[in-house]
Amino acid sequence: MADRITHVTVEHVPALARGCAILGTGGGGDSYVGHLIARQALEELGPVALITVDELPSHGIVMPLGAVGAPTVALEKLPNGSEPVRLRDHVEQRLGKEVVAVMASEIGGSNGVEPVAFAAKLGVPLLDADSMGRAFPEVHMVSQHVAGIEPDAIVVTDAGGNVVTLRAMTGPWAERIARSITVAFGGTALMADYLLDVAQVPGAVVEGSVSRAIAIGRALEDGSREPVDALVDELGAYRLLEGKIVDVERTTRGGFVRGSVAIEGTGAQAGRLLRLEIQNENLAAFEDGEVVACVPDLITVVDTQTGDAVPTELLRYGRRVSVLAFPCDPIWRTPKGLETVGPGAFGYDFPYVPVEALHA
Amino acid sequence: MADRITHVTVEHVPALARGCAILGTGGGGDSYVGHLIARQALEELGPVALITVDELPSHGIVMPLGAVGAPTVALEKLPNGSEPVRLRDHVEQRLGKEVVAVMASEIGGSNGVEPVAFAAKLGVPLLDADSMGRAFPEVHMVSQHVAGIEPDAIVVTDAGGNVVTLRAMTGPWAERIARSITVAFGGTALMADYLLDVAQVPGAVVEGSVSRAIAIGRALEDGSREPVDALVDELGAYRLLEGKIVDVERTTRGGFVRGSVAIEGTGAQAGRLLRLEIQNENLAAFEDGEVVACVPDLITVVDTQTGDAVPTELLRYGRRVSVLAFPCDPIWRTPKGLETVGPGAFGYDFPYVPVEALHA
Repeated sequence: MADRITHVTVEHVPALARGCAILGTGGGGDSYVGHLIARQALEELGPVALITVDELPSHGIVMPLGAVGAPTVALEKLPNGSEPVRLRDHVEQRLGKEVVAVMASEIGGSNGVEPVAFAAKLGVPLLDADSMGRAFPEVHMVSQHVAGIEPDAIVVTDAGGNVVTLRAMTGPWAERIARSITVAFGGTALMADYLLDVAQVPGAVVEGSVSRAIAIGRALEDGSREPVDALVDELGAYRLLEGKIVDVERTTRGGFVRGSVAIEGTGAQAGRLLRLEIQNENLAAFEDGEVVACVPDLITVVDTQTGDAVPTELLRYGRRVSVLAFPCDPIWRTPKGLETVGPGAFGYDFPYVPVEALHA
Repeated sequence: MADRITHVTVEHVPALARGCAILGTGGGGDSYVGHLIARQALEELGPVALITVDELPSHGIVMPLGAVGAPTVALEKLPNGSEPVRLRDHVEQRLGKEVVAVMASEIGGSNGVEPVAFAAKLGVPLLDADSMGRAFPEVHMVSQHVAGIEPDAIVVTDAGGNVVTLRAMTGPWAERIARSITVAFGGTALMADYLLDVAQVPGAVVEGSVSRAIAIGRALEDGSREPVDALVDELGAYRLLEGKIVDVERTTRGGFVRGSVAIEGTGAQAGRLLRLEIQNENLAAFEDGEVVACVPDLITVVDTQTGDAVPTELLRYGRRVSVLAFPCDPIWRTPKGLETVGPGAFGYDFPYVPVEALHA
């Protein structure tokens, strides 16, 4: 294991972005956008301190930030850079406390990378943690929700300057309301949600996410091996199929990308067919009518040559890909975790079986 | 003219509700709901002071309140009574100032009557004014917008307890965002919008609206004349047609009631046909392909026997009605007024002609 990273520098950004893309399971937004935003911020403003939960000051607010909306929209409708400052100002006014650190709401995709830029702009450290250990499509699908923390204040803003602060009765209400606001904004927004008092942080976040993403990205950079092989070892992943995308159904509706993709095996795996179902993220993989991996475990489609993750909005016919599946953070395998993000939370009627058990 | 009313009592409520229904031009919600809510509040809490703009204290906030959403929904999904307190608390927290008076956002329909109950509950006076002098369907269609006041803080809440505070870039953005929140809430919500510092009030509201509504209601109560005749005199209205409703098209979509209604002349007016177009309120009346009245002038459908207004959500085949049109407040005939609520603001390509000129 590499030395602990205490500051995120420009040099870390490519590995971070590649690792976040892998953890994004197709969602969280194209990490290349985050890569560019983070690189520009670090070049202008210098490195960002990366701190552990133990290193947080004793008082203040940890502000999780993430884009909400459809990645297909986020790819074209870019932020203007003023959003995190507007969110911080509203959060501090609402709560009467200082924001002492920024955290990624989800380490997946661009949402895992951009908080580096947000921390640089706000002049605060980045917490080496996130609320998912991956990406999930809905607002309340976060570790804070599992830990029993209510969404007392959620702040959402767009590139133009509209700001909405919301106190929802429950997590699912927060999702419903924030989603409708995002659609009104034009399909994408930046959100500060499930704000944490420092004292609430232990046990309510997934720790080590930023370091883990960088480690995954570094495995892909290891020129001595095939990238997918290195990735499988780093993740402890299962290879579901190697093949070619033969069909993509994808629509942007109600603030989500929804659809499915079919992948036909090639080479030694010719004749096999895998189908993935998508709601921003890859939710479930099926072969011959059987579930071969499903939420909350991670399913990632990677380019067979480079090992880089292919986000759901960039899936297209003919692309040569490998589909990997690997275990989620233990928080999601608790009863409340599975109630929040298990198959049933996405409308499936099959039970959750851990990916290790499916491939034992 | 009757003596000035300094307190609204239980005895005023029936006339107020009937007058608000007339000024609602079909919208603002069924005033019978407001009637019941106001009567209950005044019976429990006693009369509410009705003050003029001159009588406001020198500092503080005037909080306009009104239901937003589709009247068809508001008819079945009732408020629970806690909404105004929640809105006041959020407004005061956000602005750091005290709410010193409540005002109706729109004097039309239930929205003109319920603020009596809100003022009673909050223990503050009711301002004898509103933001429209009638009802309009969209959030920014208010006198404050014409006066150049920005929607810096809009607070929306539902019966369940969700609360959203919103700072919109412009009035139309406020409409777009608040509407989507209302739809997420289930189709109806209570809103505090275009909050006014006391110093901003003069020139930014339509004065005398509550007194006017009560005077209109009293004209209907005058047993010595036919109600519609008394009403026409009180309003200075034009009779567009007396007849029978022969067709109603009405859908609830995107937080609005939209549709059209056809009225066939009866008696001396047999053979004539009038068509009204609706977006919550009656927007325009057509006969033989010609506009015979349109926004921002008021078009009200009344029961031919009782003179009571028929809200758009209660229009139905066979009802005997008279259609009246009368001039709007002068604020709406200014260039910015017409830009905000003239025919073009509702997608029509015909120019505004005052109802007096159309019937000269």
